[in-house]
Amino acid sequence: MRLLLISNSTMSGEEYLDYPKNNIKDFLGDKPVKALFIPYAGVSFSFDEYEEKVKDKFNEIGHDIVSIHHFDDPVKAVLEAEAIVVGGGSTWNLTHLIHKNKLTDAIRKKVMDEKAPYIGWSAGSNLSCPTIKTTNDMPIIDPLGFEALNLIPFQINPHYLDKNPDGHGGETREDRINEFMVLNTDMYIAGLREGTMFLVEDGKISMIGDRNCRIFKHGIEAYELSAKDDFNFLMK
Amino acid sequence: MRLLLISNSTMSGEEYLDYPKNNIKDFLGDKPVKALFIPYAGVSFSFDEYEEKVKDKFNEIGHDIVSIHHFDDPVKAVLEAEAIVVGGGSTWNLTHLIHKNKLTDAIRKKVMDEKAPYIGWSAGSNLSCPTIKTTNDMPIIDPLGFEALNLIPFQINPHYLDKNPDGHGGETREDRINEFMVLNTDMYIAGLREGTMFLVEDGKISMIGDRNCRIFKHGIEAYELSAKDDFNFLMK
Repeated sequence: MRLLLISNSTMSGEEYLDYPKNNIKDFLGDKPVKALFIPYAGVSFSFDEYEEKVKDKFNEIGHDIVSIHHFDDPVKAVLEAEAIVVGGGSTWNLTHLIHKNKLTDAIRKKVMDEKAPYIGWSAGSNLSCPTIKTTNDMPIIDPLGFEALNLIPFQINPHYLDKNPDGHGGETREDRINEFMVLNTDMYIAGLREGTMFLVEDGKISMIGDRNCRIFKHGIEAYELSAKDDFNFLMK
Repeated sequence: MRLLLISNSTMSGEEYLDYPKNNIKDFLGDKPVKALFIPYAGVSFSFDEYEEKVKDKFNEIGHDIVSIHHFDDPVKAVLEAEAIVVGGGSTWNLTHLIHKNKLTDAIRKKVMDEKAPYIGWSAGSNLSCPTIKTTNDMPIIDPLGFEALNLIPFQINPHYLDKNPDGHGGETREDRINEFMVLNTDMYIAGLREGTMFLVEDGKISMIGDRNCRIFKHGIEAYELSAKDDFNFLMK
């Protein structure tokens, strides 16, 4: 199985998908790949617009995409895909449409059994987890079940954020993850800061990026790991 | 119907429930009230601890609470309550336990038909809305349905926040509310900033607090209202 699970599409002030584009290029390899793009997390723009934006960036690195919304049979589109790319936006709309179109089994088969590369960023990384219960997104639509693709056995919190804006009294991200752990005591959570990503290949996982990852599990004090550290305990 | 719907329990750096305590005192009146407290949003501390913290503050203003977790029959406890107080924390755990204990109809009867005062802050304000789809909280548990108490016909986004911390690339609160509006075109959303609250009495609504409220509806540019403005269009 090969996964590239990216925290966020875009660093503040940069161009769309700019910082991870070379990681995506390395991950897909030299031979041009035409990946199936799943734009379902896009809500405030059309799937055509979303496809165009992502296609431009993939073309820049010698690859291509086609969006699943052009296919009459989305399950068949998944089963025939060379690679699967799941973009960010609303994890809720994404999960709703994945469930509505009955794509979970097809994507799992393609990625886990047939080794099709999977690239996700933000909501697309949430979707690779056992559930969507560590998303940051507003629950704008019933996801038709909290189960996600379960490609990895731990939860990612993408866009991990250390603190609230000054003067804000609401719970911090760490407070919310602490609540998650009370109800989900056996699960690791990786707070994946912006600008970083996980690479999974042949059952091994590593982190890429200059910022640390914050690791949470019930009963253990949260701690930091850098790209040089061993993350393989997360895959057990 | 009488509702006091508070954005947040506590301003950054202040004591718990300090800023809204006099509003709660005015709302409950001179005669001592022993309200039923619903602590279900509390996750990372016990219901006993939560009750004690809230009880201390209510005692300070001449009122009292008893928590619903002491009653064998929570529906009966609601139906016999003088007033209902719903604390903040996780909107998801709160809604899960409201649904699991089948309290929706009892609370609606008590508050809408029998005019028992309802006080909520943060998650307790989310619960008064048609759905929990504008909560900020991490979805740590399946809520057993997104429907909330539907005491008011619009959505509140409590702890409304204008911008991300500097350098954060993720979506802003306004981005997320814009996504909500695409899928829920007929609903007003009130971005209720910290330190402010809504008072509903006899079908009339007003806002209390020094900061503006941000009003959203699909097809209209978001705009600001102050405590001096008329908010009654929200109740239609």
